[in-house]
Amino acid sequence: MKPYLEMSVEELTKELKSLEAQYKKVQAQEMHLDMSRGKPSQEQLDLSMGMMDVLQSTSDLTCEDGTDCRNYGQLTGIKEARELLGDMMENNPKDIIIYGNSSLNVMFDTISRAFTHGIMGSTPWCKLPEVKFLCPVPGYDRHFKITEFFGIKMIPVPMTPTGPDMDLVEKLVSEDDAIKGIWCVPKYSNPQGISYSDETVRRFARLKPAAKDFRIFWDNAYGMHHLYDDHQDYLIEILAECKRAGNPDLVYKFASTSKITFPGSGIAALATSPNNMEDILTQLKHQTIGHDKVNQLRHVRFFGDIHGIVEHMRKHAEIIRPKFEAVDEILTRDLDGLGVGTWTKPLGGYFMMFDALPGCAKDIVARAKKAGVVITPAGATWPYGKDPQDSNIRIAPTYPTLEDLVAAMNVFTLCVRISSAKKILKEKQKEA
Amino acid sequence: MKPYLEMSVEELTKELKSLEAQYKKVQAQEMHLDMSRGKPSQEQLDLSMGMMDVLQSTSDLTCEDGTDCRNYGQLTGIKEARELLGDMMENNPKDIIIYGNSSLNVMFDTISRAFTHGIMGSTPWCKLPEVKFLCPVPGYDRHFKITEFFGIKMIPVPMTPTGPDMDLVEKLVSEDDAIKGIWCVPKYSNPQGISYSDETVRRFARLKPAAKDFRIFWDNAYGMHHLYDDHQDYLIEILAECKRAGNPDLVYKFASTSKITFPGSGIAALATSPNNMEDILTQLKHQTIGHDKVNQLRHVRFFGDIHGIVEHMRKHAEIIRPKFEAVDEILTRDLDGLGVGTWTKPLGGYFMMFDALPGCAKDIVARAKKAGVVITPAGATWPYGKDPQDSNIRIAPTYPTLEDLVAAMNVFTLCVRISSAKKILKEKQKEA
Repeated sequence: MKPYLEMSVEELTKELKSLEAQYKKVQAQEMHLDMSRGKPSQEQLDLSMGMMDVLQSTSDLTCEDGTDCRNYGQLTGIKEARELLGDMMENNPKDIIIYGNSSLNVMFDTISRAFTHGIMGSTPWCKLPEVKFLCPVPGYDRHFKITEFFGIKMIPVPMTPTGPDMDLVEKLVSEDDAIKGIWCVPKYSNPQGISYSDETVRRFARLKPAAKDFRIFWDNAYGMHHLYDDHQDYLIEILAECKRAGNPDLVYKFASTSKITFPGSGIAALATSPNNMEDILTQLKHQTIGHDKVNQLRHVRFFGDIHGIVEHMRKHAEIIRPKFEAVDEILTRDLDGLGVGTWTKPLGGYFMMFDALPGCAKDIVARAKKAGVVITPAGATWPYGKDPQDSNIRIAPTYPTLEDLVAAMNVFTLCVRISSAKKILKEKQKEA
Repeated sequence: MKPYLEMSVEELTKELKSLEAQYKKVQAQEMHLDMSRGKPSQEQLDLSMGMMDVLQSTSDLTCEDGTDCRNYGQLTGIKEARELLGDMMENNPKDIIIYGNSSLNVMFDTISRAFTHGIMGSTPWCKLPEVKFLCPVPGYDRHFKITEFFGIKMIPVPMTPTGPDMDLVEKLVSEDDAIKGIWCVPKYSNPQGISYSDETVRRFARLKPAAKDFRIFWDNAYGMHHLYDDHQDYLIEILAECKRAGNPDLVYKFASTSKITFPGSGIAALATSPNNMEDILTQLKHQTIGHDKVNQLRHVRFFGDIHGIVEHMRKHAEIIRPKFEAVDEILTRDLDGLGVGTWTKPLGGYFMMFDALPGCAKDIVARAKKAGVVITPAGATWPYGKDPQDSNIRIAPTYPTLEDLVAAMNVFTLCVRISSAKKILKEKQKEA
């Protein structure tokens, strides 16, 4: 089939009529499919059920250093868990704090603390007339919701295939001391699934922010989430790079096992410099006596070591790889050559991004919803939920079964074609 | 033996010489005993080991309503856990949010949120020139550390055998709109082990605070922690009482299973009015996707229902009751009639309070430390760690074995006698 733009009004009208007939048939099926969130599927969750057996009533819940995991204490986490997540995050265990079940919660608290107490002695952000964050776009909606909640002005920075537009990032942070942070998902990014290039990471580590309390919020959520054994993205470790660049305190790095074991029952971690660590602990020691050490021990005993995590992630990949590939196949089969959108084909992570014709994203999502397929709301990948082009759509292939995913994607491409045909037809009729 | 105050200088000098000889012998034993914190003993922790078996790899981790506890979601907690803690807290499950492992963390976050966003639309506390809290004294050091961390001015309010001095509380909160809260441990209080009387609770529910964003921080940490089956304190349920009094939004009520199952691996909860709940959820939904539901389910399956918790607490009581009684026996045996201090004899909770002669508490604690016995630092039970009388000492009998506790208390009473004798002797010599 030729590109919609090259079709005559008659051809397009005919195409649209045929598509709408198909859509009516789909609606009649009364589907209920959800690919809105980056949730693991049941099959993936089953992979971690063995974790329920590693601690029994007969188990010794004592750490190597003698800590009884059942009692109070160990604010920064048990040594074994810091070592395991140190290997996972490629950081020194001493630079790591193990938290509770949610790295999002750690990010929220980090920003909240900056508001109430400032960072390393600087003015608390709540005392400043304005606080701004750079937001690579499209990006992760829950990041943007946190900054919005705190009234932080969000400045979109375009993403490129190698990461955020670093010329713009460098310029903005060096000029404006109201810019206090930037949200980054540096590996298999949400929603594109791209990874920052070596040059991007090096330039991040060498930023010269006007604000001394500027921090990079480095959410390495998908560090272990490769789809392929033989074809993987590699990311320069940011803390080490910052240290080498003479900027040791520039980064807060976040990770968790939420998408490794159980979302909601994993363990989260923060890695940062000794100065930042000391600053954080002045607050954390008043916030809690310690996080869930039994769950930390459960993770350590389940995986044994980093090789255990790698093997475990391979099993995840075996489940979700066919889903990512199915999405790409259906998009290619139904849309290739039509000129109605582009999409990413990531090597890992939880998402793919579809870029529709400008002005079509909301319509596509709404149309899919009316046919029983729930997709992440259009605009969600932008600060304040406003995509100025109305074109980005996040695709989350992991949660549905392969069968449901295929059904949902068939609806999706149909909706893309209808929206695009309508838009182009309207333009052609206007021209005429 | 007659009261020290009635002894002659000669008698006292002789007594002191004998005590100091004993102290030297004790020091020679090089003890290492810790009764500084309210931690459960190993024997108590063993009571909950069965909780490690209730969820296995073969278990169905699905809730009654179909929620898969392993995946994301359920911001307010799973229904079963809200019901169980509803029964425990004597509140409607709908008024309860189940959090992570630490009620202290919930309290910290509640105050932090009030600073950054205010309470139910009122001015964020960070924008106010001054924020004050009432602090019943002696009280819980970790409460005071939170308010101190946020720069809140703490106003001590004396505790009486029926709770805080309510005349003073009523006067202060009605006059000063900078007073935004009061810390309460209403049942088996930390450190006295007393429970608020019916009248006290009724007066709390009928407070007329000048600040509409004033809240009672009702930390019901020991609601289930009776030492005796047949002799228990009863506390009027505060939320219901506030509702009856037409003040439904006056209270945040906190509880947890930290001292029921495992400290650090329990579940915490907040109960409050629908208005407060709505206000809290506007923040919580940005802070986390949800707390650890697997651990919530683990608790529910372990206890079954509230009767399961009651039976479990009976076992705790059997372990710690002899410790509380031993402390009282040793204090009575060694100090009764000497006029060197008074102490509480609670029916539950985790602490007893010893009231030394003014000016002696720090000396007693330092002296005990030099003999290898660690006690909660004197002053810790007061805001800013400053006990103006230098007389309150918190005794935490639960953590040591009964044998160690007896050894530690023998040292303690010896130190009380030495400090008191020295003080009285000095006064007598000054008079002479």
